[in-house]
Amino acid sequence: MGTPLDQPSLDALFLDARTHNAWLDRPVSDDLLRRIWDLARMGPTSANCSPLRIVFVRSTEAKARLMPALLEGNRAKTMAAPVTAIFGSDTRFYDLLPKLFPHADARAWFAGPDKEAVAAATAFRNGTLQAAYFMLAARALGLDCGPLSGFDNALVDREFFPDGTVRSNFLCNLGHGNPAHLFPRSPRLAFEEACRGA
Amino acid sequence: MGTPLDQPSLDALFLDARTHNAWLDRPVSDDLLRRIWDLARMGPTSANCSPLRIVFVRSTEAKARLMPALLEGNRAKTMAAPVTAIFGSDTRFYDLLPKLFPHADARAWFAGPDKEAVAAATAFRNGTLQAAYFMLAARALGLDCGPLSGFDNALVDREFFPDGTVRSNFLCNLGHGNPAHLFPRSPRLAFEEACRGA
Repeated sequence: MGTPLDQPSLDALFLDARTHNAWLDRPVSDDLLRRIWDLARMGPTSANCSPLRIVFVRSTEAKARLMPALLEGNRAKTMAAPVTAIFGSDTRFYDLLPKLFPHADARAWFAGPDKEAVAAATAFRNGTLQAAYFMLAARALGLDCGPLSGFDNALVDREFFPDGTVRSNFLCNLGHGNPAHLFPRSPRLAFEEACRGA
Repeated sequence: MGTPLDQPSLDALFLDARTHNAWLDRPVSDDLLRRIWDLARMGPTSANCSPLRIVFVRSTEAKARLMPALLEGNRAKTMAAPVTAIFGSDTRFYDLLPKLFPHADARAWFAGPDKEAVAAATAFRNGTLQAAYFMLAARALGLDCGPLSGFDNALVDREFFPDGTVRSNFLCNLGHGNPAHLFPRSPRLAFEEACRGA
């Protein structure tokens, strides 16, 4: 490593990218979703645990099953999005560790009733990291994101993760955003407000 | 948006980037940490809640305070890193919402004893998202990352967040990695193993 990305790339990832609420009539291909996954999955997780699971909601039928779980203000934009990703975390991620982390018995660090709290925190933390990687990978490949947390997690779990091992984390509409419908950008914290040296 | 990043940028962010365990003797300037923050802070959080707080541990004295909290296997590489970021999440993030989300009374969504669970999950989820943005922003500006979760959170909180409102999430060594000390890359999940359409 060592060579910084150019300014247009930093703009596309961070500085000009916005959370979108309205979508242009441009499709999002399955192939593009796969290419995003193939980038996002390379990001780091602890013990390579990789707990992120995604349902890409695209059909009218599946959108209708999602709708009742959404807060009123999140419904229209989600129904209109070409794809809505449901990001979930697999609470039984450790069953895959013999494959994902073959050089140690990492499953034993998380499996069993006395490890439930650490396994749940690990699933939530690392599933969330991977969801962030996914959103930045989507932007890197030219898509816009509209993440949202305003929904009934239990209802989404029942509809989309019925076997009970995956817990929904948050949703993200994906498509090509319509910049005409953006809200003004909200302020961010200065370095001094959030960071300090030691 | 719309123009994908070029292949070297995708490589630097995702495909060639690795979790590093050994560091070249090259400094990491305070100015670079600020530039990373100025990118990372622009990533999306729910209601712009921005709960990430970072302590950049750089001095010998502060490294010594961090060391007892680390699992044995994480000590040498962390002591050798030019900077170790402690990523924490501010559980009282909602006190800044009148500034960060001025167009609604968002503080009321999270403040108060009956909202503690939703506030804690929001702090953890969004602080983790921002930590992922920070790591990818660090890579985008040419740094390498070495994130790690193997440490005693309560001990770190007592040493570095003594007022009790910020909870440590995970640590990340920052510097220019020495590729000679990389482990072989672990496998990742295929699209079909982690994703499905609906």
